Amino acid sequence: MRGATYFFICVDLSLALFEEPAVFPLPFLATSIIEVLCLTVFFGRLIHFAKVTPQMVFWKDTKNICIMVTIALTLIDLIIYGSLEAVSIHSVRWSRALRPVFLINFPESRQIRRAFRSIRKTLPDILYVFLLFMFSVLIFSLMALKLFGDRGLKTVEGSSYFTNILEIAFELYVLVTTANSPDVMLPAYDFNWWYSLYFVTFIIINTYIFMSVFLAVVYNNYRKHLKNEIRKLVYLKRHKMIEAFNILKVKVGTEFVVKETEWRQLTKVVAPDISTSHLELLLRISDEGQKGHVDKMNFLRLADLLNIQVVTINVRRHPLEAWVPRVYQSPASLWVRKMVQHRIFVWVFDVIILINAIFIALDEKNPFISYAEWLFLSLYVIEILLKLYTYEPRAYFGRKQFWNGFDMLIIIAALVATVANATIQSARKYNSQQILDIVLILRILRLLRVIISIQRFRVIVTTLINIGPTMLMFGGLVLVVYYAFAIIGMEVFQGKVRFFEPNSTAPDSLVCGNPALKGSTFARDRYCKNNFNDLASSFIVLMELTVVNQWHILAGGFALVTHQAAKLYFILFHIVVVILIVNIFIAFILEAFFVAY
Amino acid sequence: MRGATYFFICVDLSLALFEEPAVFPLPFLATSIIEVLCLTVFFGRLIHFAKVTPQMVFWKDTKNICIMVTIALTLIDLIIYGSLEAVSIHSVRWSRALRPVFLINFPESRQIRRAFRSIRKTLPDILYVFLLFMFSVLIFSLMALKLFGDRGLKTVEGSSYFTNILEIAFELYVLVTTANSPDVMLPAYDFNWWYSLYFVTFIIINTYIFMSVFLAVVYNNYRKHLKNEIRKLVYLKRHKMIEAFNILKVKVGTEFVVKETEWRQLTKVVAPDISTSHLELLLRISDEGQKGHVDKMNFLRLADLLNIQVVTINVRRHPLEAWVPRVYQSPASLWVRKMVQHRIFVWVFDVIILINAIFIALDEKNPFISYAEWLFLSLYVIEILLKLYTYEPRAYFGRKQFWNGFDMLIIIAALVATVANATIQSARKYNSQQILDIVLILRILRLLRVIISIQRFRVIVTTLINIGPTMLMFGGLVLVVYYAFAIIGMEVFQGKVRFFEPNSTAPDSLVCGNPALKGSTFARDRYCKNNFNDLASSFIVLMELTVVNQWHILAGGFALVTHQAAKLYFILFHIVVVILIVNIFIAFILEAFFVAY
Ligand code: NA
Repeated sequence: MRGATYFFICVDLSLALFEEPAVFPLPFLATSIIEVLCLTVFFGRLIHFAKVTPQMVFWKDTKNICIMVTIALTLIDLIIYGSLEAVSIHSVRWSRALRPVFLINFPESRQIRRAFRSIRKTLPDILYVFLLFMFSVLIFSLMALKLFGDRGLKTVEGSSYFTNILEIAFELYVLVTTANSPDVMLPAYDFNWWYSLYFVTFIIINTYIFMSVFLAVVYNNYRKHLKNEIRKLVYLKRHKMIEAFNILKVKVGTEFVVKETEWRQLTKVVAPDISTSHLELLLRISDEGQKGHVDKMNFLRLADLLNIQVVTINVRRHPLEAWVPRVYQSPASLWVRKMVQHRIFVWVFDVIILINAIFIALDEKNPFISYAEWLFLSLYVIEILLKLYTYEPRAYFGRKQFWNGFDMLIIIAALVATVANATIQSARKYNSQQILDIVLILRILRLLRVIISIQRFRVIVTTLINIGPTMLMFGGLVLVVYYAFAIIGMEVFQGKVRFFEPNSTAPDSLVCGNPALKGSTFARDRYCKNNFNDLASSFIVLMELTVVNQWHILAGGFALVTHQAAKLYFILFHIVVVILIVNIFIAFILEAFFVAY
Repeated sequence: MRGATYFFICVDLSLALFEEPAVFPLPFLATSIIEVLCLTVFFGRLIHFAKVTPQMVFWKDTKNICIMVTIALTLIDLIIYGSLEAVSIHSVRWSRALRPVFLINFPESRQIRRAFRSIRKTLPDILYVFLLFMFSVLIFSLMALKLFGDRGLKTVEGSSYFTNILEIAFELYVLVTTANSPDVMLPAYDFNWWYSLYFVTFIIINTYIFMSVFLAVVYNNYRKHLKNEIRKLVYLKRHKMIEAFNILKVKVGTEFVVKETEWRQLTKVVAPDISTSHLELLLRISDEGQKGHVDKMNFLRLADLLNIQVVTINVRRHPLEAWVPRVYQSPASLWVRKMVQHRIFVWVFDVIILINAIFIALDEKNPFISYAEWLFLSLYVIEILLKLYTYEPRAYFGRKQFWNGFDMLIIIAALVATVANATIQSARKYNSQQILDIVLILRILRLLRVIISIQRFRVIVTTLINIGPTMLMFGGLVLVVYYAFAIIGMEVFQGKVRFFEPNSTAPDSLVCGNPALKGSTFARDRYCKNNFNDLASSFIVLMELTVVNQWHILAGGFALVTHQAAKLYFILFHIVVVILIVNIFIAFILEAFFVAY
């Protein structure tokens, strides 16, 4: 059920790849049938919810209302667009920007929803800082207009410098993001050294102080609401456990308790993978007096107890020791095992990897070096075999031994890819570019093994790996926002800027197919492929806008081919993604490292 | 004494303005005599310390050793440089980079020293993250070399793309700072959409995660060491108070105490401005049993008690009420006072300011508008007079009423400047540009008054004003680092890049006077005034490097006119200033806002 819902959400979202402007075009009829199918599934799911939950609860849940409204709006949009299309009038498929609503509002996306709720609660605090910040930018704009407007200064491109208050405000907003520093300062600075102080003051106040205050406000709210969320979860858990207790309880003597058999059954149901020894341990803890039943206080602890990871240390014998004990315990075998366990063994292989790195950096077309590659691979395989000979395999690849598995995986993948490439090469006398690229990346990833050997690095990387799942949540959050912006961007900017192959002879290829870009920095820097002509390209443009650098060039280019007001789209994206989401991401990394260190 | 030391430190530091390469050139003899004079003063100060502190303590203090070594090194440098100059050999005045040592090591700069100590303690933690980060950049460089090196791709400038591992590593380091995004990606992206994923991965790992981890490590250490510093200060205070108690104590009954008269004298000495009522209050608290003496525990609390700001609320009568009670209490006067105290009075003047802002934004050469300016000024003066009539002046401008003073100051300054400008204009028939600029800035600063009216804005601005003193400490820290880098920069890069007036006809003016810059982005963007030809210009370049954007263009330009190794200077600056100091600044703002909110 859960998997199916996610599948249809993915299908619905990925429709944007096939609709105009498309990466892989499909007729409107095909995409609209698929969309209606998805909507039916979502509606079916909703009806299922309505059946299993009380009516009051169902209608009070904004999630359900949101999904229903979005389904209705999408259907209306489909009908209007379809009818207009039938009489050859091209209109806007606006409801596509609402598709992420399905991703957010299904119960499985609790994490993303929580992040959105946290953002919503941050908004009032952010708003006041933002107003003050805009006020500051406006005051500086007014000063700039008065200080520089009448000087007759020219920018490097030869246009007039700081003569229009709206343009100044935009330039100063860009300066806050640092994207046009120092260029925006140069005409005034070239005129008089003292004017640089105006820009220094501006940058200190707006870029350093205000942007840090934004981070502080976002961080503070993030911590506050995350704490609330956790407290709410704890309360909810306790509440549910009390309900469960009331159902299972029987009276023994003066107090209500849960019998041992019921307790066992329940635990088996909620934790089906639990080992018998683990279950006995839990019972021993919960039934302190060994009376054959668990009292209320201990029953409520069950949920917490099941969250505790009980690390079972198995001192198992190596399988070879059981099969061929004489050989495995022989002096030669013992010597090999001792050698493998020695620290020098690790160091030797670290040195081998570093030598390998030098070989990789050198030209691989040299036949000697490509033979050396086989030698290195064999050495790594020997290393793994030796380790498997020495350590008990199940312990070596245990759940907590992430690094050993990672190591093995990379070696095997590299081996497979290298063999595959060699086979293709000898069979068809040509190199498959994709496989070569993969072999290459795997070969270089092998260098990551050096990190494993150094304890301090291990700590940092382990922290990063532990926050991986939450990072996926950020991935979802960013996907949702990108999707909505990409759809709007495609409706507004599609086809305005076109990409031509580098050696194209088309007359407009130097201005990205649009004469309005003549003489613009956008065209000069060859940004033609940064366009909104399909979902994939749009996502890359939005990624570039997230990184911030040169975003004003992109904004300027798209404003030239449409209207100056288009810059508002880019400013809004900056506020939502950089000021809000990126700051939450930074706050999250800070918090994760504070907990880990 | 303290003022004199700071004066001579300033003189010593500002010598860089007069030494080659100079803003205001002075002969070597003049600057060296002044420098020797400063050194003499510093040495005299040191001898004074040596006399008043025990010998053991004096020689154990690294501060004193540092100053002595720096004095010696500077003298050696002066002698060598002077002798070589006498025989016309030009050498390097390397000891100038050591001058900030004097600023750091005098006892008055405790704050800056503390910040440096905190940075030093952060270094080991930072180091491991930095190594891991460099390792990641190198692995990605190797991948880039292998993935893109053989494709024959060209950058927008037409040079070969990603063919040299050192160049790739530099480009990727620049990409971490986002300064060359998205340009560095474009050749690969234009070739194949999929290659953009390489850059997306790189940016997520290095720009977002690693840079946040740097902030986390710096922030964590900042909190840790700041806490230690505060604990140390508390310990020191207690220790000194115990010493003071031991000097003043007399035996009364079984316990040692300090007599009320001694206690009064001491308090008067350490807090000369204390009011009698405040002193009595403190005594009442310290001498709980009213026994005429203070016991040890209460005596130790004195330092803390004196830190507590006791807010005295004086309900004073307005002077006019004392002088002309009949007039001041008349119905008309009462009506005026009631009106001024009303909220609408504030709102009316906020609206007036906003109308004023629109007039400022309009062209001031229109005579009607310049008359309106006088009208607005008179309205503001009337407002202040009305407020002074209504509120008791000492209460109105009290210590906690920062905003009222700020308001008054801006109005009076604007009035004085406008009158001064009008006088000059009518007398000499020309506008003084400097005074006009000042009038203008004051006129616009008046808009800040709108902030005062809105409570939420007031909170934010008050927090920012409260952290002002610590910001000055950061100013000192940045000054020290900038100074050292500026001196090195001037020695290495002086005269390599020259600025020509925009309408210059000199043949080399388009390449900043250096043919090596032909075709470079540095010359194309007209960065010629960003040079190290004097201290003022150097500081602006370093400020631009701190802002990060386009730093690779600056680094590339200076590498072209000297050697590719010059890029190391810019990378080092980035690590020290952006990764360390700016992150500490951000950590500081975060912490300040967490405390305030
Ligand atoms: Na930038």
